[in-house]
Amino acid sequence: MHGSKTPDSRLVAFGGGRLDRVDHVRSNPLLLAEAFASPLARRIVLEGLEPVVEGGHLVMEPLPGDAWIEHHALLGVDEDQRPIFAELLAEAPDSFFATPRSRALASEVPGHEVALYGTARSLLAWHARHRFCSMCGQRTAPSKAGWSRKCGSCEAEHFPRVDPVVIMLAEHRGRVLLGRQHSWPAGRYSALAGFVEPGETLEEAVVREIREEAGVATHSVRYVTSQPWPFPSSLMIACTAEADDDALKVDENEIEHAFWCDEAGVRAAMAGEEDAPFLAPPPMAVAWHLLRHWLDRRTAG
Amino acid sequence: MHGSKTPDSRLVAFGGGRLDRVDHVRSNPLLLAEAFASPLARRIVLEGLEPVVEGGHLVMEPLPGDAWIEHHALLGVDEDQRPIFAELLAEAPDSFFATPRSRALASEVPGHEVALYGTARSLLAWHARHRFCSMCGQRTAPSKAGWSRKCGSCEAEHFPRVDPVVIMLAEHRGRVLLGRQHSWPAGRYSALAGFVEPGETLEEAVVREIREEAGVATHSVRYVTSQPWPFPSSLMIACTAEADDDALKVDENEIEHAFWCDEAGVRAAMAGEEDAPFLAPPPMAVAWHLLRHWLDRRTAG
Ligand SMILES: [Zn+2]
Ligand SMILES: [Zn+2]
Repeated sequence: MHGSKTPDSRLVAFGGGRLDRVDHVRSNPLLLAEAFASPLARRIVLEGLEPVVEGGHLVMEPLPGDAWIEHHALLGVDEDQRPIFAELLAEAPDSFFATPRSRALASEVPGHEVALYGTARSLLAWHARHRFCSMCGQRTAPSKAGWSRKCGSCEAEHFPRVDPVVIMLAEHRGRVLLGRQHSWPAGRYSALAGFVEPGETLEEAVVREIREEAGVATHSVRYVTSQPWPFPSSLMIACTAEADDDALKVDENEIEHAFWCDEAGVRAAMAGEEDAPFLAPPPMAVAWHLLRHWLDRRTAG
Repeated sequence: MHGSKTPDSRLVAFGGGRLDRVDHVRSNPLLLAEAFASPLARRIVLEGLEPVVEGGHLVMEPLPGDAWIEHHALLGVDEDQRPIFAELLAEAPDSFFATPRSRALASEVPGHEVALYGTARSLLAWHARHRFCSMCGQRTAPSKAGWSRKCGSCEAEHFPRVDPVVIMLAEHRGRVLLGRQHSWPAGRYSALAGFVEPGETLEEAVVREIREEAGVATHSVRYVTSQPWPFPSSLMIACTAEADDDALKVDENEIEHAFWCDEAGVRAAMAGEEDAPFLAPPPMAVAWHLLRHWLDRRTAG
């Protein structure tokens, strides 16, 4: 499988998966049973939704003899022709948000294994939150190798959710707009972000969010890169936009504080310097790539 | 509100909405009640999910005296300071897909009204499909001015769904890859498309879909534009990609036929010429903009 060559996107945490998702197997019970029965088949070992790491790799195990195909999702087939499964959770976990352990994974195993974990986590979280049919309230059961759920009563079919989120840097005369949420570690600032709503383009969502959160009017939205974010299942869409002026009117329900940061300040923060004006987001966050992209473009002139 | 200036996105059907979505009103019962009680308040007149048009405009009506605030979604506030509502459907419609009547709207009313209708349609369809809690099976009720639903039993909060879809033109030596689905009108060809899955970037979704549907390996994915598509609630993300070679291996479960079309053929189809090699998608489809963008870029050299 070819990776994308869009700038930076190869490097984004949770991207860069190498599984062939074998869509044609999902709807073919015979091929699916063959994959499940294959001596090459493996499943990812998890504790709830948390990853298990040994020797710098995700732990994988052969499918035990008493494993039920109906309780497994087929994530895909890896480069060694091994069908890779994930076991659906018997109980819903307490939380679907990122944990220190799941965040740490990005620096512990190769990037394509981080992507595999992210796919499994998003898919299992979706199953755990969709045991019942939103149309009729009756029980649903996994279908299509774990890539859909079907209602036993009204026959509705439900598909995994992916929530598009825009995350963006507004720019004004060589400075970028950074904000922080109340819950973040002291000093941490990042790009503004928000969910795309029904009835708007990506570009309109970018303009709306910057205006809602910081009171800044923007235009000339440009797409930069994207990232799957498995907490539980967002698609981060990273953009830049140009601001008309630098007056801020922060919505304090949404963010705690926002400020315009110049190039030297962003460089100091990205280099982790002690006297930097803010603590940069970690490299696993697409905001880090967005700041990197902005600096690179300024250097390129 | 500033519209986006990304190429073409201003012109895309269902984009270009002019409502201020007044996010801060949604969670504020007092402000919401004021908006609902305002003599300026209007609601969009629909028949089920279908639009009603008179004199080149969507029909809007004052809120009747017996209207219940709990049964309405606040779409936003228009340029004349009118709060615009949509009444939730009492019963789920038979289908959520596009109809001739809803498709015709794009050529009947101004673009910003098409966007308003699209927002209403997506939101109402989402409510109609989420009367029950996917986590526990009990009833949910609308909340936050129609922008969420809450479960009365387990207290889960559910948010409107937006499904990201990639739609893309693979290019190879001055030709683009077009495909047709079995159900389309005779002669119609368009860009390939598919839903983004959990655990992949946009760029990876583009590469996967072209490979799955046409057997073509691609790289160098570039974002072009986006479009909200309210049948029921997709976000179309339009891209180009470069193909390594032009050998096709079409998955006939997914598409009926695919071929590489040269510039002259695309120009003839977009001009609606009778001897064109295919029938172009309509201008309301983002695929039309994608083909237009490709032609413009070739002219620009
Ligand atoms: Zn059902
Ligand atoms: Zn519930």
